[in-house]
Amino acid sequence: MRFVEKLENAIDKNDSLLCVGLDTDLSKIPDYLKDDENPLLSFNKEVVSHTKDLVCSYKINLAFYEASGIAGVKALIDTVKIIPDDIPVIIDGKRGDIGNTARMYAKAVFEVIKGDAATLNPYLGYDSIKPFLEYEDRYVFVICKTSNPSSSEIQDRKVNGKRLYQLVAERIKEWGPNCGAVVGATYPEEIREVRKILGDDRIILIPGIGKQGGDLEKSVRYGCTSGKNIIINVSRSVIYAEGDFPQCVRDAADDFRRNINLFRPF
Amino acid sequence: MRFVEKLENAIDKNDSLLCVGLDTDLSKIPDYLKDDENPLLSFNKEVVSHTKDLVCSYKINLAFYEASGIAGVKALIDTVKIIPDDIPVIIDGKRGDIGNTARMYAKAVFEVIKGDAATLNPYLGYDSIKPFLEYEDRYVFVICKTSNPSSSEIQDRKVNGKRLYQLVAERIKEWGPNCGAVVGATYPEEIREVRKILGDDRIILIPGIGKQGGDLEKSVRYGCTSGKNIIINVSRSVIYAEGDFPQCVRDAADDFRRNINLFRPF
Repeated sequence: MRFVEKLENAIDKNDSLLCVGLDTDLSKIPDYLKDDENPLLSFNKEVVSHTKDLVCSYKINLAFYEASGIAGVKALIDTVKIIPDDIPVIIDGKRGDIGNTARMYAKAVFEVIKGDAATLNPYLGYDSIKPFLEYEDRYVFVICKTSNPSSSEIQDRKVNGKRLYQLVAERIKEWGPNCGAVVGATYPEEIREVRKILGDDRIILIPGIGKQGGDLEKSVRYGCTSGKNIIINVSRSVIYAEGDFPQCVRDAADDFRRNINLFRPF
Repeated sequence: MRFVEKLENAIDKNDSLLCVGLDTDLSKIPDYLKDDENPLLSFNKEVVSHTKDLVCSYKINLAFYEASGIAGVKALIDTVKIIPDDIPVIIDGKRGDIGNTARMYAKAVFEVIKGDAATLNPYLGYDSIKPFLEYEDRYVFVICKTSNPSSSEIQDRKVNGKRLYQLVAERIKEWGPNCGAVVGATYPEEIREVRKILGDDRIILIPGIGKQGGDLEKSVRYGCTSGKNIIINVSRSVIYAEGDFPQCVRDAADDFRRNINLFRPF
């Protein structure tokens, strides 16, 4: 099944645009899990089993697994296996490299880790994106305007009267039907702008809600023009929610799910 | 020892500006190694033992190891261990992410993999670079003008009368003393331009020689203004050189080393 179809089915089934981000940090997981054979995986199992009926997708942030070496990579690969087949998995690595290297990254993300979608960096141009797009049943989210404070340093530079992130959005539109964008919820006006450039048929992945302080209402209103063309990612504010683990995770996820739905057009 | 000191010592000891790129591809290594417990590592052992007196550094391209999953990550970590301590290792992953994620990538690259330097992507700005720069004894190479054909798509855009890659070079100059640039040998004029912006005290890592067809003479003449401030990376044309493995690797590395030295100013 193609990524978009799988995503839309999950959105419908769980009535949710929420993606839970598995930025699993060994130093932040409950003590009782730390003696398990693979604590990162044990934590993710609890998170997934308590949220799988509340989300449209999961996003796995590769950095957090790479920081634990071989055990981390094991946890990463096994986490994808424990996520139900009907919930798409976004592998968030923001890779970007020249053609022959990009092919190896695409293989890693889509064949070894077996993700349904990947985040990529546009700085090297089409060469670096194409090997991922060739997996036509998968999806690519190219970072466009990122949620961090210094994203303006490069992304907001004026190029022929436009901002660089707008030009990147134009490239995304041209690069192909299975290419969407990442725009941070901390920049809702930019979400509106990117949506205008991409049209309604591309998915925008929106991180930056929760700890990063993004604007949920505007992000949904500006981004979600078809009812199903955005994914709102929340990582830390769900998986490290205060309270009794894992119920606190479920409660936080359900709160976000409902809040997002308040602003959905249909 | 700081990266630059270690690099300069290796340059002197081996009279070499050559970095051998370990883009080790399971499908391209000699058949007799394929039954080994970890063929990627076995191949790298042969390459390193036959070139370690001819190079100033090694560069490990993460994509090629990630594409082999857990066995690949094992080979990666063990490859760093078999490289002699006095030869610096550049971890080439071109990472770029928001602050808290960048910290995890920095941990992965400098503490888990134990690289001496890392390649990074500038698209997210200073936030995404700073956690790496804080390892003051290590070095960061930010991609500036990459060697691939579509690098112009974003990197050559005009921003206030300059090209974007020039603006990135200006940021690199400001970001700190342990921050250098990656500029492809396929764009020698851009090497000259970046050198002018960075001054003589920053290292430029130059890939794109060999299979990619970069201009070795101009790359060295334009980049190497101090005698020790460039690293010329060659990957495929050394490790998959034609002939009897591993002697062919040694011969190819020595040819590149000598050819580079022909153009060194001193």
